Amino acid sequence: MKLATFEPPEEACLDQRVGCYDDDAETLVDVTAAYATLLANRGEQCPNEIARAHAPTDMIAFLERGERATDAAEEAIEFVRETGGGTGIDGRRLAYDLDEVSLLSPVPNPTSLRDYMVVEEHVRNALGDDIPEEWFELPVYYKADSNCIGHPDQDIEWPSYTEEMDYELELAAVIGKEGRDIAAENADEYIAGYTIYNDLSARDMQFREMEVNLGPSKGKDFNGSNVLGPFLVTPNSIRIDDVRMTARVNGEVWSEGTLGAMQHSFAEMIEHTSQSQYLYPGDVLGSGTIGMGCGLEMDRYLSRGDTVELEVEGIGTLRNRIVEL
Amino acid sequence: MKLATFEPPEEACLDQRVGCYDDDAETLVDVTAAYATLLANRGEQCPNEIARAHAPTDMIAFLERGERATDAAEEAIEFVRETGGGTGIDGRRLAYDLDEVSLLSPVPNPTSLRDYMVVEEHVRNALGDDIPEEWFELPVYYKADSNCIGHPDQDIEWPSYTEEMDYELELAAVIGKEGRDIAAENADEYIAGYTIYNDLSARDMQFREMEVNLGPSKGKDFNGSNVLGPFLVTPNSIRIDDVRMTARVNGEVWSEGTLGAMQHSFAEMIEHTSQSQYLYPGDVLGSGTIGMGCGLEMDRYLSRGDTVELEVEGIGTLRNRIVEL
Repeated sequence: MKLATFEPPEEACLDQRVGCYDDDAETLVDVTAAYATLLANRGEQCPNEIARAHAPTDMIAFLERGERATDAAEEAIEFVRETGGGTGIDGRRLAYDLDEVSLLSPVPNPTSLRDYMVVEEHVRNALGDDIPEEWFELPVYYKADSNCIGHPDQDIEWPSYTEEMDYELELAAVIGKEGRDIAAENADEYIAGYTIYNDLSARDMQFREMEVNLGPSKGKDFNGSNVLGPFLVTPNSIRIDDVRMTARVNGEVWSEGTLGAMQHSFAEMIEHTSQSQYLYPGDVLGSGTIGMGCGLEMDRYLSRGDTVELEVEGIGTLRNRIVEL
Repeated sequence: MKLATFEPPEEACLDQRVGCYDDDAETLVDVTAAYATLLANRGEQCPNEIARAHAPTDMIAFLERGERATDAAEEAIEFVRETGGGTGIDGRRLAYDLDEVSLLSPVPNPTSLRDYMVVEEHVRNALGDDIPEEWFELPVYYKADSNCIGHPDQDIEWPSYTEEMDYELELAAVIGKEGRDIAAENADEYIAGYTIYNDLSARDMQFREMEVNLGPSKGKDFNGSNVLGPFLVTPNSIRIDDVRMTARVNGEVWSEGTLGAMQHSFAEMIEHTSQSQYLYPGDVLGSGTIGMGCGLEMDRYLSRGDTVELEVEGIGTLRNRIVEL
């Protein structure tokens, strides 16, 4: 199942909705609106209230409902296929073509955003062959800025202080359920789905900062620097270790590969991180860059006006221009 | 002015309120309730609605109101002094003794939490005399976990994976106004106030992680690891560079000093950080540890059951036990 957060075209004020993309029909179904209309058609009382309780329009609230929400989404897709969509009980359209709506990040306001670094080839390219033994033992992470989220097709502003802008081709897992001290063997049930993560980086600033050994700050923190999207794909619909991952700059392939052998799986990241603390719905965990998945590894950086596309098989393409505003 | 977030004793469900502490009368005034009652006494219409709009019960919303909220707090204190407090228009008490209420962190859910490291003596003790030149040039920070906030008098759980628990004696500034690309000379108007920050640290884990050069993660992230409180003191009521700062463990003084000469002022941190990104009300910026302000600098760590008190003149004492649960 492919979930999205989107803004419908007809809304004057910004109104975020949860959508579920029907690959066969190529339509994005407004889950809450379609499910409410389905309930009304069945003669149920208070269909809007029940639909909003089972399948809320905010993605984190939606994920918190677990199977209740994904079951509603499946029924909503089926209902739109049967009825052809149209207008629902409260005057809302039930389905859209993708090019009619604005996709936001599937989780527009993550509860947190941690970024790990679990692919050995990338670590070797970034840190050199002398990898510290701690890297093999611990799924170390830094905390990215969850208030700097970019979304599909957004023009990202070139930060004023950099001449070395870079992308990073990553996969991210989104937590759907609260928990702590989670054993790796139970961790998969805490993952609501996966999305693409472009961890934009101002390398010149990042390397200056990291001399102080506090982890990246302004090298990773600027408006829109953490781009997530376009869809959140549920774990039953994707095999993350061997899906093809590609980065293109202005149409030219710069990076290509798979996550491959991760030194630490998402389940192990969850086990490590949830020791003596809670994970919450809406927490996002980035894999770190795949091998040769960023310009740094090729000593090749972005230019003002470049379009970066990260494509992951089964999820879609996350496209952004990096522009001087 | 000393602001707090507190839970009144009579509430069955958890209900957070903004309080303003009257040092002379030694009472904590429920700002929203007292201001509403004052408006009602003046014959104003819809006093509860107006009071909640001017002086909300959520601290971040309160800070966003700026002077409108602090003016209401001043009037509320004056009103309670004149009337003796008692019960307000909606049956709420207007003022409490401190020992009747539970103080939370003044900002229970910060928008973000950045921690800097601006005191040279601490850096010299922590990193050695070979300080990288970048430390002098940039107010580098890492992002702490804003979902791991501890509050005054909370029993903090000893993390399962450490034998080297430590405190850090820090001051924190809280942002009250949204802005970006803020020049240092205008930065003070973005600071709503200051509070004490105990940046609890699991040193053994921290040093293993930092070998990977991604900044601290589980060394700083566990339930209650970032303790803030007890009060948020507005800038007009404190001179932060020379207030006395003290850390005591089980009553014994372990650290004592002042922030002294900061290599980078809070205004400079704001200028650096707000480049090409927004700061928001409820963002918290930690100074980093003062010289000799943590056990690491003395090779002396906490034991299970220890009580740590951080006292800052003009703000109060932030007291926590660190216990194995």
